[in-house]
Amino acid sequence: MTSDFLRADGRALDQMRSVRITRGFTSNPAGSVLVEFGNTRVMCTASVEFGVPRFKKNSGEGWLTAEYAMLPSSTHDRMPRESMRGKVKGRTHEISRLVGRALRAAVDLSQLGENTINIDCDVLQADGGTRTASITGAYVALADAIAVLQAEGVVPGQPLLPPVAAVSVGLIDGRVCLDLPYEEDSRAEVDLNVVMTESGRFVEIQGTGEQGDFGREELNQMLDSAEKGCRELVAAQKAALEA
Amino acid sequence: MTSDFLRADGRALDQMRSVRITRGFTSNPAGSVLVEFGNTRVMCTASVEFGVPRFKKNSGEGWLTAEYAMLPSSTHDRMPRESMRGKVKGRTHEISRLVGRALRAAVDLSQLGENTINIDCDVLQADGGTRTASITGAYVALADAIAVLQAEGVVPGQPLLPPVAAVSVGLIDGRVCLDLPYEEDSRAEVDLNVVMTESGRFVEIQGTGEQGDFGREELNQMLDSAEKGCRELVAAQKAALEA
Amino acid sequence: MTSDFLRADGRALDQMRSVRITRGFTSNPAGSVLVEFGNTRVMCTASVEFGVPRFKKNSGEGWLTAEYAMLPSSTHDRMPRESMRGKVKGRTHEISRLVGRALRAAVDLSQLGENTINIDCDVLQADGGTRTASITGAYVALADAIAVLQAEGVVPGQPLLPPVAAVSVGLIDGRVCLDLPYEEDSRAEVDLNVVMTESGRFVEIQGTGEQGDFGREELNQMLDSAEKGCRELVAAQKAALEA
Amino acid sequence: MTSDFLRADGRALDQMRSVRITRGFTSNPAGSVLVEFGNTRVMCTASVEFGVPRFKKNSGEGWLTAEYAMLPSSTHDRMPRESMRGKVKGRTHEISRLVGRALRAAVDLSQLGENTINIDCDVLQADGGTRTASITGAYVALADAIAVLQAEGVVPGQPLLPPVAAVSVGLIDGRVCLDLPYEEDSRAEVDLNVVMTESGRFVEIQGTGEQGDFGREELNQMLDSAEKGCRELVAAQKAALEA
Amino acid sequence: MTSDFLRADGRALDQMRSVRITRGFTSNPAGSVLVEFGNTRVMCTASVEFGVPRFKKNSGEGWLTAEYAMLPSSTHDRMPRESMRGKVKGRTHEISRLVGRALRAAVDLSQLGENTINIDCDVLQADGGTRTASITGAYVALADAIAVLQAEGVVPGQPLLPPVAAVSVGLIDGRVCLDLPYEEDSRAEVDLNVVMTESGRFVEIQGTGEQGDFGREELNQMLDSAEKGCRELVAAQKAALEA
Amino acid sequence: MTSDFLRADGRALDQMRSVRITRGFTSNPAGSVLVEFGNTRVMCTASVEFGVPRFKKNSGEGWLTAEYAMLPSSTHDRMPRESMRGKVKGRTHEISRLVGRALRAAVDLSQLGENTINIDCDVLQADGGTRTASITGAYVALADAIAVLQAEGVVPGQPLLPPVAAVSVGLIDGRVCLDLPYEEDSRAEVDLNVVMTESGRFVEIQGTGEQGDFGREELNQMLDSAEKGCRELVAAQKAALEA
Repeated sequence: MTSDFLRADGRALDQMRSVRITRGFTSNPAGSVLVEFGNTRVMCTASVEFGVPRFKKNSGEGWLTAEYAMLPSSTHDRMPRESMRGKVKGRTHEISRLVGRALRAAVDLSQLGENTINIDCDVLQADGGTRTASITGAYVALADAIAVLQAEGVVPGQPLLPPVAAVSVGLIDGRVCLDLPYEEDSRAEVDLNVVMTESGRFVEIQGTGEQGDFGREELNQMLDSAEKGCRELVAAQKAALEA
Repeated sequence: MTSDFLRADGRALDQMRSVRITRGFTSNPAGSVLVEFGNTRVMCTASVEFGVPRFKKNSGEGWLTAEYAMLPSSTHDRMPRESMRGKVKGRTHEISRLVGRALRAAVDLSQLGENTINIDCDVLQADGGTRTASITGAYVALADAIAVLQAEGVVPGQPLLPPVAAVSVGLIDGRVCLDLPYEEDSRAEVDLNVVMTESGRFVEIQGTGEQGDFGREELNQMLDSAEKGCRELVAAQKAALEA
Repeated sequence: MTSDFLRADGRALDQMRSVRITRGFTSNPAGSVLVEFGNTRVMCTASVEFGVPRFKKNSGEGWLTAEYAMLPSSTHDRMPRESMRGKVKGRTHEISRLVGRALRAAVDLSQLGENTINIDCDVLQADGGTRTASITGAYVALADAIAVLQAEGVVPGQPLLPPVAAVSVGLIDGRVCLDLPYEEDSRAEVDLNVVMTESGRFVEIQGTGEQGDFGREELNQMLDSAEKGCRELVAAQKAALEA
Repeated sequence: MTSDFLRADGRALDQMRSVRITRGFTSNPAGSVLVEFGNTRVMCTASVEFGVPRFKKNSGEGWLTAEYAMLPSSTHDRMPRESMRGKVKGRTHEISRLVGRALRAAVDLSQLGENTINIDCDVLQADGGTRTASITGAYVALADAIAVLQAEGVVPGQPLLPPVAAVSVGLIDGRVCLDLPYEEDSRAEVDLNVVMTESGRFVEIQGTGEQGDFGREELNQMLDSAEKGCRELVAAQKAALEA
Repeated sequence: MTSDFLRADGRALDQMRSVRITRGFTSNPAGSVLVEFGNTRVMCTASVEFGVPRFKKNSGEGWLTAEYAMLPSSTHDRMPRESMRGKVKGRTHEISRLVGRALRAAVDLSQLGENTINIDCDVLQADGGTRTASITGAYVALADAIAVLQAEGVVPGQPLLPPVAAVSVGLIDGRVCLDLPYEEDSRAEVDLNVVMTESGRFVEIQGTGEQGDFGREELNQMLDSAEKGCRELVAAQKAALEA
Repeated sequence: MTSDFLRADGRALDQMRSVRITRGFTSNPAGSVLVEFGNTRVMCTASVEFGVPRFKKNSGEGWLTAEYAMLPSSTHDRMPRESMRGKVKGRTHEISRLVGRALRAAVDLSQLGENTINIDCDVLQADGGTRTASITGAYVALADAIAVLQAEGVVPGQPLLPPVAAVSVGLIDGRVCLDLPYEEDSRAEVDLNVVMTESGRFVEIQGTGEQGDFGREELNQMLDSAEKGCRELVAAQKAALEA
């Protein structure tokens, strides 16, 4: 797909922002990754806890849970800190749940033993696509954490499944744009987030007509673009893990 | 689509449960509807408040917001009451936000004046599809509330847009099933919720591979089935509003 | 007692509003009742949980607890949802505790085994007397739940005691009025809630001089009227349970 | 009423514990009273705030509100501090509301100007009857606070009404006992709290069959005893205010 | 140190306010003390609980924890009640932690058995120095509570260590003033709180340049004055315990 | 001061860990700094908000407030997220308040206009000294934010005061050690945090005998060491600001 339509950052319509995945970003968690999609920067960590939540007790299986949050200073205008407000916003809850579901698709819980993996995605700098960057980076942190578990002999099996990555696509002035920065996201007619496996199958799709509805045709074009993006992200994940 | 596969309730794969929409279910809110998808029963109301939230002040536009909740006794095993726990669960937040977005697609805020419509969807009995029933019923409550506003001369314009309805589709043992009750929902490989306009365009799609991923082909079959369901739901909405 | 004083709804001073008790209103809880006192409608359910709270552990006895709440759209002007405010109002707490005490007078905890019955009273539509309707309806839900427990052989003894019912009485312009709707309640000088057993003995009386005090004489007249109301309510409870 | 029945503290059945009312207990609030009913000790204060809550704005009237709380170390076994638990117990809410209603019966809000009086009743030592001691002591603090307001010329009229006092009565082994300490309260069959004006009229009665129900005859005997108690309490209030 | 500088209450610069320590102030806790530093009055109690928090389980040692709070009416202008706001202020947290650390320096946890001592410091009247009065009074309550434990044979060893006391010092118009009342505290350039053992060693020092910084020389002068104050406070503690 | 005592990381007793201050770490806040004291890494930002809190309204002055928090994955064992627990820990509150006081000593509020500066210190990786690193880094972020305000012509005067820096000192096995990493901090007998101005005067000192008390002599040695550390930190701050 080519385009004479100019995006503010000069990208082609179906071009990802520059993606960087830095492993070992911090040293305390078993896996710690800084993921960057352009100016969006998220610290993704995977920590291991012995034992599982009550509903998994004595199942012989492990569990994975995730929490997403934005630092108060990550956004253009500072956001009030959720811990000080005493409650978590609906958007935060919603994304935390999405990240958890996405990453559970990348781990075989039956191979994990009764251990819990806590994924934390803390947004240091927000410029659109924080949830998709979170998922993409968290997979790499998860892989590192599982490798630690295996090296320590704690995990009996092979819990890591092939990569899962995520990207956003939007419809702006009727054109399908891949990987939206904040400026595009805020004026997109439609916003679609896609979580995909390495083999190109969907783990989750969430499409919202923020300022307009969309038809099957447009959906298909957006899914094509998302597939291209996810393919590139999986390549970046694999490159990072092989580095 | 026909099928020799038997669902527990004897329905065809692409057959909705019996849908009932009862207007005027209670008398205090401007719009009050009991919506039933089989055994799922949700009380949907639309209440009008003068004024708008701060971020809409002096915009000349109105606002619509929604809250979804399950009564503690609505589920098979009683759930703790969220007000007593002191916090709202992530799932509740997530669905409240979905209902709000979906219903905002059915109202022209610029025609509403600086008034706020509060949608409340309280689940009396849960048997799967509570969020899709909520959206479908809330549209009818919204229509009634706007009619009240217009009759009172409060609303200057024509804020009501054509119907928006929602349905769930799932993949169970590889087959596409429409409008899942709890028993099916809990064992579906994939769960897709679709919010659609009367003209068959998407307002929101949320598909999750709860226990497996899915391909483009399966997505398309699920969307076909959802479209059939939504078409029938819109017919039910219009019938209810004309009654 | 006869009267030429006209109430807005044409009732005699000592006449109850029309009372309806619908069993099996929803199907998940062991007991589920819709109770109506005129326009006041409350969904009362009784759910059974195995085990008892800590202070009853190893007592050989069961426990009964109750929660009362108003749906946000149940009142004339929509009320903020308590779960979203993050705290329960004093009035809600107060009524929940009253309902719990009243219903514990209708169950022999020593015959219940170490099981807990959760009573939920959710007001769908409020027009005065929601707490007394809640108590009256909850007894019927309790009876149904205990019958289920007995049918399942879970409960060793005969925990159900004779009916307990409740009614409000008020002093309006110096006249004793039975079963106040909201319009009367809001301008009553004195408001008295009475919980009574089938044999006419008090379980609880709460009388408040909202806008004036009251003497022994007036108290006695109000109690006479309440007794008449409760007698009729017990008859309605028994009729519902025999239906 | 005389009695050969011996209470643990040697009192006659209709005899109050020793009552002490100390004005000026602390110096910051406009009114500050330590009230003692035997070993029960409550610090009751009345503080004045300019302005009224929103629902009273521009009414030309004042408002009175009350908060009751137990210090964590006031009870035999230390209670968790409500501020640390992050929520207020139902019992606390219930008593705060009772104290507020009772004291509002002792003030003519229309004479108060748009000022708010905050009553705080903090239990230093609990031995039964904390809510009735709170009401009785708070009246004296209220009187002192209103005198301050009048001395300062802030209050235009005569807002203070004649005394309101409160006492508990119980049925223990079938006998009516006045002013129950904790040991009696915890084993009483029936517990009745009565708030009464100087002229012997009821402001509030709350009777609960904690472990049994009660008939009209018993109620009347309990009310007789409460009336005697309240008469003595009003005398103590007046003596304190004249001291 | 002498001075011709006049403090509002006529004290010399290095003179404590009048200190009173009243043991047995209330009767339910094992130790209960009213401590007064001039007009500042704090009720300090020590309650004993069997068992220890999780992080001390099976350590063979005990634990001590402390909570500090101000009654809403303790200050010149009434403060909102923290339990009603649903959260504890930072200042409250900070002082509670200080009191806990200070008192743990006065108890040998290894001699306490697996018991927990809860210190509660509730400010009845605030006039500066509430945290230092709290620590000073709490030591006496702690001593009484430990004596009770020993009398009951619950505590195997000698857990009580020599006294710990605390005092504030400030720099006002460049002069070192001991034991600041509120009026001085609010205009001090520097505020220093010192917790000291009987032998004159520091347990904690917290110095803050509220409205200006300070040098080593001034620090040393303030520490000299604090040492004098603490010596007098320890004498008062010992006198109280011997009374 | 020289020493043959070996610290785990080979430092001399009075030697700081390697300190790095990176300006412009993120781009949304007016000032954004990554500060590193060895393995401790804190992101410090300064964001500007128009207007001031209520207690500063119409004072003509500005305000500065600070929030400190640890990311859940910043510690060796993952900590629960405070926003999810619904309340902020006492330690967090305490450090936030300390950072705020320290930074207010570096700004002339009367020169700021009625603007508020929000300091956020979010710990990415914790290895002791997070509060002192926070203060040291936050000064640089503050300087950058004020420069932005001045460049935009928003701030009338010269609000920035000379640098404020902070360091910890501890007593370990009786020896004074500067700038403690976690391993040393957890076994130090005494822990002293010092906030100092460029001119070597104290803004705040907090010394705690965590596992033992300390005398004047030891305090003086610790203050000497802290002074050396702060001098070096101020040099690092100035070097960063000149870079």
